[in-house]
Amino acid sequence: MKLRRSDHLCPNFQAALDILARPWNGLIMATLADAGSLRFSALREQLAAMGDRMLSLRLKELETRGLVERRVSPGPPVKVDYALTELGRGFGDVSAALGRWGQRVNAAATPPPRRGNGGRRRPNP
Amino acid sequence: MKLRRSDHLCPNFQAALDILARPWNGLIMATLADAGSLRFSALREQLAAMGDRMLSLRLKELETRGLVERRVSPGPPVKVDYALTELGRGFGDVSAALGRWGQRVNAAATPPPRRGNGGRRRPNP
Repeated sequence: MKLRRSDHLCPNFQAALDILARPWNGLIMATLADAGSLRFSALREQLAAMGDRMLSLRLKELETRGLVERRVSPGPPVKVDYALTELGRGFGDVSAALGRWGQRVNAAATPPPRRGNGGRRRPNP
Repeated sequence: MKLRRSDHLCPNFQAALDILARPWNGLIMATLADAGSLRFSALREQLAAMGDRMLSLRLKELETRGLVERRVSPGPPVKVDYALTELGRGFGDVSAALGRWGQRVNAAATPPPRRGNGGRRRPNP
């Protein structure tokens, strides 16, 4: 992948953006933030169009970056689940800001209800 | 492109994330936010690895979503520049949150300086 970067922008902003610019990362982190922790299969169920291989790849990347931790509880049967690290939970502020801005984006994409006669149906003559 | 979406997450959050999950969009908006307005060539110069075709495609998408406006000043020569709309400027809050989180992400990726002897070089014997 070509490096997407600008020498004119803040490196901190770009580091965070780089995480979200990869497919699924934002959805994975938000899902883990809501759930606290999830097993692989439960996480994948919440991300309908995502395959096992892609989820596995993304989770490994997020682990390498210190955002997600893979927790193994000794068995039998061995249980493995995934949760955000403290650094990963820092995504919460970004997520809240995205929600507020997204509300405006969605509102702008939805045509306003027709007014005309104040929204009332005309009485039949 | 397959639809990346989760039925369990806030649609507003997902609408905003969807904008940033496309390559370059965050960098284009942040560059326009810093500069106020830019001509096509000046914008591309700040995004070194980006080709004309990709920039043109992204700008059209951002225009369609009401985030960027293309402004034409009558000539000759005709001048065209690009700026964020009011909705696009709403990205500012997201961008600030990304910067704060990215600072922590970058700090975690950088190994702390070695301590050992308090950072002082040992005097030569």
